[in-house]
Amino acid sequence: MARPATIDVVIPPLDEGAMRHAAARQSRLTKPAGSLGRLEELSISLAGMTGRQDPPLADRVVFTLAADHGVAKEGVSAYPRDVTAQMVFNFLRGGAAINVLARQAGARVVVGDLGVDADLPEHPELRSLKVRHGTASITQGPAMSLEEARQAIENGRQLLREEIATGLDVVLTGDMGIGNTTASAAVICALTQLDPKDVVGRGTGVDDDGLERKREAVRKALEVNRDLIAIGPVEALSAVGGLEIAGLVGVILEAAANRRPVVIDGFISGAAALVATLIAPNATGYMIASHRSQELGHGALLRRLGLRPLLELDLRLGEGTGAVLALPLLEGAVRTLNDMATFDEAGVSERDQEAAHNSPHN
Amino acid sequence: MARPATIDVVIPPLDEGAMRHAAARQSRLTKPAGSLGRLEELSISLAGMTGRQDPPLADRVVFTLAADHGVAKEGVSAYPRDVTAQMVFNFLRGGAAINVLARQAGARVVVGDLGVDADLPEHPELRSLKVRHGTASITQGPAMSLEEARQAIENGRQLLREEIATGLDVVLTGDMGIGNTTASAAVICALTQLDPKDVVGRGTGVDDDGLERKREAVRKALEVNRDLIAIGPVEALSAVGGLEIAGLVGVILEAAANRRPVVIDGFISGAAALVATLIAPNATGYMIASHRSQELGHGALLRRLGLRPLLELDLRLGEGTGAVLALPLLEGAVRTLNDMATFDEAGVSERDQEAAHNSPHN
Repeated sequence: MARPATIDVVIPPLDEGAMRHAAARQSRLTKPAGSLGRLEELSISLAGMTGRQDPPLADRVVFTLAADHGVAKEGVSAYPRDVTAQMVFNFLRGGAAINVLARQAGARVVVGDLGVDADLPEHPELRSLKVRHGTASITQGPAMSLEEARQAIENGRQLLREEIATGLDVVLTGDMGIGNTTASAAVICALTQLDPKDVVGRGTGVDDDGLERKREAVRKALEVNRDLIAIGPVEALSAVGGLEIAGLVGVILEAAANRRPVVIDGFISGAAALVATLIAPNATGYMIASHRSQELGHGALLRRLGLRPLLELDLRLGEGTGAVLALPLLEGAVRTLNDMATFDEAGVSERDQEAAHNSPHN
Repeated sequence: MARPATIDVVIPPLDEGAMRHAAARQSRLTKPAGSLGRLEELSISLAGMTGRQDPPLADRVVFTLAADHGVAKEGVSAYPRDVTAQMVFNFLRGGAAINVLARQAGARVVVGDLGVDADLPEHPELRSLKVRHGTASITQGPAMSLEEARQAIENGRQLLREEIATGLDVVLTGDMGIGNTTASAAVICALTQLDPKDVVGRGTGVDDDGLERKREAVRKALEVNRDLIAIGPVEALSAVGGLEIAGLVGVILEAAANRRPVVIDGFISGAAALVATLIAPNATGYMIASHRSQELGHGALLRRLGLRPLLELDLRLGEGTGAVLALPLLEGAVRTLNDMATFDEAGVSERDQEAAHNSPHN
């Protein structure tokens, strides 16, 4: 059997010392220990990722990567394929949900064309990283060649490196691509033992017939591409994935290699996170699952990644919207850890602190 | 049997027309219908409360009301009673979690002393609304007289009216009071058919013995005050509640009467919300459940109120911290509804819109 393709990336382990320091400070703050729940966990995780108790969070960039999917011609989406390009224009004009929510959160939206099946005009806000004009249909054979998959990953990495050079504290993932919940479901099934019936969901909102067509398309894709899938994660990605998914794999890997926290959006970003984890297991430590989407298999995927989502808001939009909505929680985690008074500073008496600390639940 | 005390408050019904308008606009925005999940629901609810599609959210005030509890002397908390006053000072110095998170969210913290058992000095940020120096122990008889409960409710209403006069768009509830998860659990059990074993939790973090003492205290309080509880919600509040809980009832009622959205914090605020709902059922329409806390009975309480929490972050701190953390979601809901492009504006062709709208899940 062929050897799996490797991606040359080195991801450092989390900084255990910084995590211990953060945890120790949490226990001295003026609140019952543990009472800020997931915010406390998050403050400790962020310290581990960045090596800092007060990691900067000001430069926040959403990478909304777009591409088309051959499988979209097979009735797997509620929207026709040309909506991908139309939505890219919407992103560039600032009218999409991700633009509105990113403005609110003070985040920049970087739109990357990894493989939209249209000749998009030059635009200062659009990064042309096109590897090809959309994928081939995964039900007929591989979505793309192995070389194209590697190129899309490399383009994602390059995009991230450029943004780091201009200032980047937190990475958020996002996507646009009609048909990409089908490709993502196929990637997830290919790389886990999950069954399409437990992973394939309604995406943008297909009806029962559409859902059956999606399931069938994923089953067929897994069957047709079986040999390629068996080789390794990059091969599976090339077989049944998508160009924006591959680009996101690159974004995630390069972010982790540079110790930047990566806020993972929903189902499509989750598929990319899974591939990244299988390429470089250390990458998982840098991931923050922003939300659990309404898409069927997302919960199972997050469990597989060992990630617990911060939000459950029944979102199913993609673009990076869930990731951006989680940003205030990261900020709250860092601010409470650094800006709250300790019991000593607040003059809570020794006796009172002891009374509280003697409780096994404190 | 005595007739229940009434509170003279008129709460208007939600604006159904504004809700219909908001829902109609949601369906024209450049996203699959429903794909912003709870943000869409929230935008419609906020329109119903305020009568506006673009309700202002700029003036946001957390009402962190404090009081002491006689029952705190009976080993029901991990902290001694004087921590209530110490935390009030911490609020005034800006070192508590609520201060840090409110600064992040651009919210003002108004600290109200409804019944702290200490003579607090005058301070520009502290509203003295003290009804009495802490409650009597609920295990021995009523926490306070009916007149005191009514006064605390009125003080909360008066506080809210003053803030409305200076500008107030969104109300957030918060609390501080050692022993107040015990009083809140008693209020919840008194006004629902829930059993103390399903409602009493660990609060700030008592151990197993402390938890048993809390359960026992609540059972005893319900027994001792049985006749008073049977009369009505204000009587039950006076019997087993707390002064800050009563103040929050007033804040919530007056906010709803003035069509201001009320973001309900956790367990203690939830007990106040329950009392407010039983006094004036229309009040519930103005409530937004910010989060489900880790406190045992909170989930059951929210179901009883018919409220679904926006966040589940394992918080159990109170002060208004969960409410403030939910503010960006309210803002995101209003911004997406108002600032996103419609399909027409984005130039998505008629054919494409039809394709999407013909799907039953769109």
